[in-house]
Amino acid sequence: MMRTRPLKVALLGCGVVGSEVARIMTTHADDLAARIGAPVELAGVAVRRPSRVREGIPAELVTTDATALVKRGDIDVVVEVIGGIEPARSLITAAFEHGASVVSANKALLAQDGAALHAAAEENNKDLYYEAAVAGAIPLIRPLRESLAGDKVNRVLGIVNGTTNFILDKMDSTGAGYQEALDEATALGYAEADPTADVEGFDAAAKAAILAGIAFHTRVRLDDVYREGMTEVTAADFRSAKEMGCTIKLLAICERSKDGASVTARVHPAMIPLTHPLASVRGAYNAVFVESDAAGQLMFYGPGAGGSPTASAVLGDLVAVCRNRLNGATGPGESAYAALPVSPMGEVVTRYHISLDVADKPGVLAQVATVFAEHGVSIDTVRQQGKDGEASLVVVTHRASDASLTGTVEALRKLDTVRGVASIMRVEGE
Amino acid sequence: MMRTRPLKVALLGCGVVGSEVARIMTTHADDLAARIGAPVELAGVAVRRPSRVREGIPAELVTTDATALVKRGDIDVVVEVIGGIEPARSLITAAFEHGASVVSANKALLAQDGAALHAAAEENNKDLYYEAAVAGAIPLIRPLRESLAGDKVNRVLGIVNGTTNFILDKMDSTGAGYQEALDEATALGYAEADPTADVEGFDAAAKAAILAGIAFHTRVRLDDVYREGMTEVTAADFRSAKEMGCTIKLLAICERSKDGASVTARVHPAMIPLTHPLASVRGAYNAVFVESDAAGQLMFYGPGAGGSPTASAVLGDLVAVCRNRLNGATGPGESAYAALPVSPMGEVVTRYHISLDVADKPGVLAQVATVFAEHGVSIDTVRQQGKDGEASLVVVTHRASDASLTGTVEALRKLDTVRGVASIMRVEGE
Repeated sequence: MMRTRPLKVALLGCGVVGSEVARIMTTHADDLAARIGAPVELAGVAVRRPSRVREGIPAELVTTDATALVKRGDIDVVVEVIGGIEPARSLITAAFEHGASVVSANKALLAQDGAALHAAAEENNKDLYYEAAVAGAIPLIRPLRESLAGDKVNRVLGIVNGTTNFILDKMDSTGAGYQEALDEATALGYAEADPTADVEGFDAAAKAAILAGIAFHTRVRLDDVYREGMTEVTAADFRSAKEMGCTIKLLAICERSKDGASVTARVHPAMIPLTHPLASVRGAYNAVFVESDAAGQLMFYGPGAGGSPTASAVLGDLVAVCRNRLNGATGPGESAYAALPVSPMGEVVTRYHISLDVADKPGVLAQVATVFAEHGVSIDTVRQQGKDGEASLVVVTHRASDASLTGTVEALRKLDTVRGVASIMRVEGE
Repeated sequence: MMRTRPLKVALLGCGVVGSEVARIMTTHADDLAARIGAPVELAGVAVRRPSRVREGIPAELVTTDATALVKRGDIDVVVEVIGGIEPARSLITAAFEHGASVVSANKALLAQDGAALHAAAEENNKDLYYEAAVAGAIPLIRPLRESLAGDKVNRVLGIVNGTTNFILDKMDSTGAGYQEALDEATALGYAEADPTADVEGFDAAAKAAILAGIAFHTRVRLDDVYREGMTEVTAADFRSAKEMGCTIKLLAICERSKDGASVTARVHPAMIPLTHPLASVRGAYNAVFVESDAAGQLMFYGPGAGGSPTASAVLGDLVAVCRNRLNGATGPGESAYAALPVSPMGEVVTRYHISLDVADKPGVLAQVATVFAEHGVSIDTVRQQGKDGEASLVVVTHRASDASLTGTVEALRKLDTVRGVASIMRVEGE
């Protein structure tokens, strides 16, 4: 049963992702029509610079007036691939008010204003889908909010930023330092000229907020996510990691507390065992590891960025939203009924790898061990290495709260025999 | 907006999976109600042996009359976890006719009669969901038929049977032979007393048929799937694989031909490079690798069997089907519009690793190479090893059709200088 009146799609943005969405909509029109049950038609494309030649897109569809496009009233689905907060937020809200559903790839906006956008969608009985906002082509939002809808997710552990994974993988495999690996990533186009959003963990934090929200049926705002970049990871850290049978990844970690009464979300570099499935995620690939009560351990792996992979995710959502529209129904909206409190970083419990520069004389280890004990942080292993009057002490702890660890480190810094704290890194995935 | 009249669920089968479904429905009733938008109630449980004590299931819900249960008329969703063809098929059909949607974990039935069941669902405007039928808890059906609905899948490469992966992993890591590894799998409960369905690839073939059908929007029947078991894989094969930087996995492979005009589906042991993400899938875990035009390479990993993981998949479907019902809609049904022909095994194109026992005298290699050339099979590498008057010759080919390779091997067997063909194994994932 094929309906002949086409569904009308407005495309906001025609850069790397948008142009690929338009291309696939044209070249795969028959497949899309068969899968949806009605043809889809590109009804308008809003761009900033209309003069740029856009292959395959009829000039009469191109407009600089995005607001007029979303308010036309005959648009079925608005695809937003502009990015950023404004004008994307106003355009999406206007789209709902004027009868359209929305497919978005905008992680920053979803992380910051997801609740308000979901409310606007629900008020107008429209869909808001955004599979492309987290980890590009990897199906994650749909599995978390649909496939695992009958399960209880306890932890999400993800490599959700390709740029930083490329850099860390390069450091791991070549022994390069951070700057050298970043330079290579930039030269190869894996890092932007200003890599701040990636290397400081802002991009990953937005994704962590979205994932935590869906996984725990709880609103998690960007501000709730603890964030630490990976610019201070050194070649020495990788050597320490190797000695422990680990590598280092920038992880987005969303966890339910042991008693189930609260959740946490954080982004920071961490050591993970080489035997963990995330350890072998190479280059710019992304992967997300999910632990749930009934399903156990799942992992989703694939390209986390790029025009084509992101377009694949956008089009999957487009098909779903179009199908819902033909059915006169909407898909799952925001699910925040659990409304669990988001605990601060100090309450996170994990293990730590601490590297100290200490005086090479008797009694130092006893002093250091006393400080750990006084703060209730139990030591798993200690490794001591002497070098010309100085020595280094590598301590790996058992599980302890971040607050206890912070207290321990502050006290260690005050010891005369501790010359410096060379590095502190969390150990995850065990 | 919570509806108060509960949705009624009939459970067919209360074994390892069914009892876990019932348990989670009871213990997580509030979560399920919040996610669905209405409470769900277990309205009846059909079993064969009503005398067995079933913890947590009220005795008055238990019946041996499954047919009467599905025909009650007040059932919203029938969950079928009996397995096998009959009575499951008749019960599912009756369920549709009497107003219920169906969630099934029945791979054998779906692979054999998927088209008829889908037709029955559509005729009655009901849902048929079966995420649990392939690879247990791993979300696969939903990502393939929804997330990738706007993309073009070219290949699905999966480890979809945990028993055989456990055995092959054991052979790989310990150097054990097939029988020894099987014995250990049996002792640990990973293999059934009669392991035929697993080790001969019947279970994987059913899953390959289902996956190929969804991936290519084409009906693929169980009979269309080429099937070769893994009982003849030897320790020597693993040594050969290691020399090539490979390991051996039992793979379900669904491929679109290069010209896109046909598809193939097959199950057989194959060498894959250690660098391939599937190579590091250990123990009884499953993983499915998907290659598509736009998304590129994706992998889905997790537990492929077991009561809890399978229940997780069943419950995810149950939530979706209940939501659809409240919406007065149905989810995506069968999509077979592409109706591509399924080519026979002879037309599959891949690489081969062939191990020959040959006479250790000059000219043998030239003879063998001539046979390959005459059948249009191009040789990539040859490795010759002498041992006491006999020698072995290991040939790795470039890509060639299965028919050409079969012709080559037949001709090789006729050569006087070839004492025997020790093994032939396909090389995949490059």
